[in-house]
Amino acid sequence: MDDLVANLKVALGSSGVLTGPAAAEKAQGGWSKLGAPKIVLRPASTDEVAQALKLCHAAGEAIVPWGGKTGLVEGGEADGRIALSLDRMNKIEEIDVAAGTATVQAGCVLQTVCEAVEAAGALFPLDLGARGSATIGGNISTNAGGNRVIRYGMMRDMVLGLEAVLADGTVISSMNHLIKNNAGYDLKQLFLGSEGTLGVVTRAVLRLRPKPLSQDTAYVAVEDFEQLPKFLRHMERALGGTLSAFEVMWEDFYKLVTTEPAKGKAPLEYGHPYYVLVESMGGNQEDDSARFEKALMASLESGEVVDAVIAKNQAERDAMWSLRDDVGQVARNFPIFTFDVSLKISDMESYIAEVREGLQAKWPESSLMVFGHLGDGNLHVIPGSLPAHNAETRKAVEQIVYAALRKRGGSVSAEHGIGLEKRPYLGWTRSPEEVALMRVLKAALDPKNILNPGKVLEPVVAHAKAAE
Amino acid sequence: MDDLVANLKVALGSSGVLTGPAAAEKAQGGWSKLGAPKIVLRPASTDEVAQALKLCHAAGEAIVPWGGKTGLVEGGEADGRIALSLDRMNKIEEIDVAAGTATVQAGCVLQTVCEAVEAAGALFPLDLGARGSATIGGNISTNAGGNRVIRYGMMRDMVLGLEAVLADGTVISSMNHLIKNNAGYDLKQLFLGSEGTLGVVTRAVLRLRPKPLSQDTAYVAVEDFEQLPKFLRHMERALGGTLSAFEVMWEDFYKLVTTEPAKGKAPLEYGHPYYVLVESMGGNQEDDSARFEKALMASLESGEVVDAVIAKNQAERDAMWSLRDDVGQVARNFPIFTFDVSLKISDMESYIAEVREGLQAKWPESSLMVFGHLGDGNLHVIPGSLPAHNAETRKAVEQIVYAALRKRGGSVSAEHGIGLEKRPYLGWTRSPEEVALMRVLKAALDPKNILNPGKVLEPVVAHAKAAE
Repeated sequence: MDDLVANLKVALGSSGVLTGPAAAEKAQGGWSKLGAPKIVLRPASTDEVAQALKLCHAAGEAIVPWGGKTGLVEGGEADGRIALSLDRMNKIEEIDVAAGTATVQAGCVLQTVCEAVEAAGALFPLDLGARGSATIGGNISTNAGGNRVIRYGMMRDMVLGLEAVLADGTVISSMNHLIKNNAGYDLKQLFLGSEGTLGVVTRAVLRLRPKPLSQDTAYVAVEDFEQLPKFLRHMERALGGTLSAFEVMWEDFYKLVTTEPAKGKAPLEYGHPYYVLVESMGGNQEDDSARFEKALMASLESGEVVDAVIAKNQAERDAMWSLRDDVGQVARNFPIFTFDVSLKISDMESYIAEVREGLQAKWPESSLMVFGHLGDGNLHVIPGSLPAHNAETRKAVEQIVYAALRKRGGSVSAEHGIGLEKRPYLGWTRSPEEVALMRVLKAALDPKNILNPGKVLEPVVAHAKAAE
Repeated sequence: MDDLVANLKVALGSSGVLTGPAAAEKAQGGWSKLGAPKIVLRPASTDEVAQALKLCHAAGEAIVPWGGKTGLVEGGEADGRIALSLDRMNKIEEIDVAAGTATVQAGCVLQTVCEAVEAAGALFPLDLGARGSATIGGNISTNAGGNRVIRYGMMRDMVLGLEAVLADGTVISSMNHLIKNNAGYDLKQLFLGSEGTLGVVTRAVLRLRPKPLSQDTAYVAVEDFEQLPKFLRHMERALGGTLSAFEVMWEDFYKLVTTEPAKGKAPLEYGHPYYVLVESMGGNQEDDSARFEKALMASLESGEVVDAVIAKNQAERDAMWSLRDDVGQVARNFPIFTFDVSLKISDMESYIAEVREGLQAKWPESSLMVFGHLGDGNLHVIPGSLPAHNAETRKAVEQIVYAALRKRGGSVSAEHGIGLEKRPYLGWTRSPEEVALMRVLKAALDPKNILNPGKVLEPVVAHAKAAE
């Protein structure tokens, strides 16, 4: 180990290799459970990442890649291991609005990239709560989702090319700038959403979109769940291609973020089971506002929605979004556990009813907050007011939330990933053949199992033991 | 071999195993160069595909998957081999408009699927010239592009889940119906665009879109190449999210498809270097037409375009599209060779000039037809009136077309794939490390190299010999 540290210091410089308290300190300050790494590497270039991986590969030492430390599933857990932070690789290399591309290093913070792109006159559409800390590399490794998937897709749809370093230090530079490129296998897909287990992403070419010239935002109240998908399809059709958000809140959550100590005010009266934040982004403010209002009026007339309020200015728009973003209020129901599931919209009503019933039967005092990106089939489900915040309670809650999901063919992770936290439930969403094929890929790309080992897939040894 | 045929007949039934003249006949009737297969298998179910692969795998016999036989790069070439046609697996299993999904077997013809989805009230947006014969399985295997990529993406963006059979007969059923699913590696990506070399696609879950309620189509004339990207960005912005096609024709091609014996009439006068077919699909015909006209007027005023004509009815719209679809006219310049390249829009003008110059220098009588999906960076480049249609001429033309492309970091295949035809040039677009990683994937998923061997990647043995 001393040899390895010495060699790493030669390759990365002393400031690129943190040990002892400096390493421990580097694990602080994020949202993620990271543990206490023995070493934190801070390479300043792709070449340094390659050298670090080559040295660790030769020594058989595992590496845990770190982005913005805002992952929610323990994907960056590095207790007693070597972590590799991309935080020094935070350069925006090029923004080319005419070509519709931004070339960035993996350690760039999402919000920084979005602001720079906007200043240049275009849009990078990824938008999520952790925007101020999450990095592009982390967004790629977790295939991030967020608020605008319904319009622009997930991170997978926003990356034209990328560069990644394989376990043995080989640099795969697929810095494609083209929208269409069918020359051989699309290798970037290997690194999108594989949570750092197949390679370390170092740079990327992002796809930019035209900056919208209009924004229209409203809250509506809906009386029956079955009206929600009808209202969604109506808005999709009526707004052409401009629907950019369709965020649903169950009434409990809506109340939570609009009552003190929350700062938000309720834009619509209480008393309805569902509230929807709906938004359109288009090309002409006057025309688009007229169209948005007409579409909402039609849904009021058809009875799909029973009440609606449209933001009259940017301040009102911001206030509407701040309710949706004030997810932190769920902590008022501590102890809580948070889930990020996806399922067919047509299954959602019965699913939530079954989860609620299961929780109530076991803990009559419990609460259940539900909100999410309904247009994408993605719900955030947050049981709270539970008896304890320990492993036992968590497991009992997981059984309730995931058993009802498994029956309906849902996914245990819509956008957060698997990491360590959801690993025991991967097989509830994926078949044994699928998991076996994931293992084939892992073994082919990382035969010594040094890249974020134990994340996503159970370690083979532990797995064999567990099966005994 | 006799044993294998006998076992295949037990597994697939006699009608599922064609040999001799029946096999040769099955290779006829498409656009693709398929050669003369010794056997054509016609499995009727995923289970039969799995059994066929298992038997061939055990016998070490290669399999060449066939879809609609309209591939353009010899990806289905099966001379002296066993071909596996998916044509009996042509069932549309389910169309669920509320959920936005269609579940289909791989042998379904694209147009059949599109029509069934439209009849159900939704849109499956893939649209390309071979729509009447190309199959969903082939569209997946080649990651098909076409006319609406600018709005809806490529086939990769339209597939939520799929089922594929691996080389050894293992069925990987990833029939995901969810828009968001980050539970482990996204395995479907392995089979999208890998041209049947990593698995045989048997079924798929397609993502449907809302059926557009409006369509506005126009031709415009553009005087300088540099106005084209400006006009494109202007229309993207001004039309919100509704721009659905941006097809550019160089004047030679525009003349070709509007002069006899072509049936089309020129919607705009000759004498401009570029013509653009531009289209918007939105939610309200009256509003959208007004917006479309306003956007075109603005570009006439700014000088981005110098002339424009808007289709007044469906017949005029169809006539406009029929020009773009009348690609067969290029045969008038026989001998021709067709190319499908992608590159940055800002490089296109100099690229085409260099190719034209190279062709003229060698063959002063030669012609050059250019048209394509400019919004996607994709051009179809068709040198013609060449001295001969043989391998030698072809190679000389390839050198001119691809050398100019390589300098500009373009791709030798935007949407057609690599197959056999472009295999020698894969390394002109992809790095040695990328090609090596493709080989790692191929070896991991198909260690006996029985799935469409020799396509995309040079055979390792031949490769080693060539390097000697």
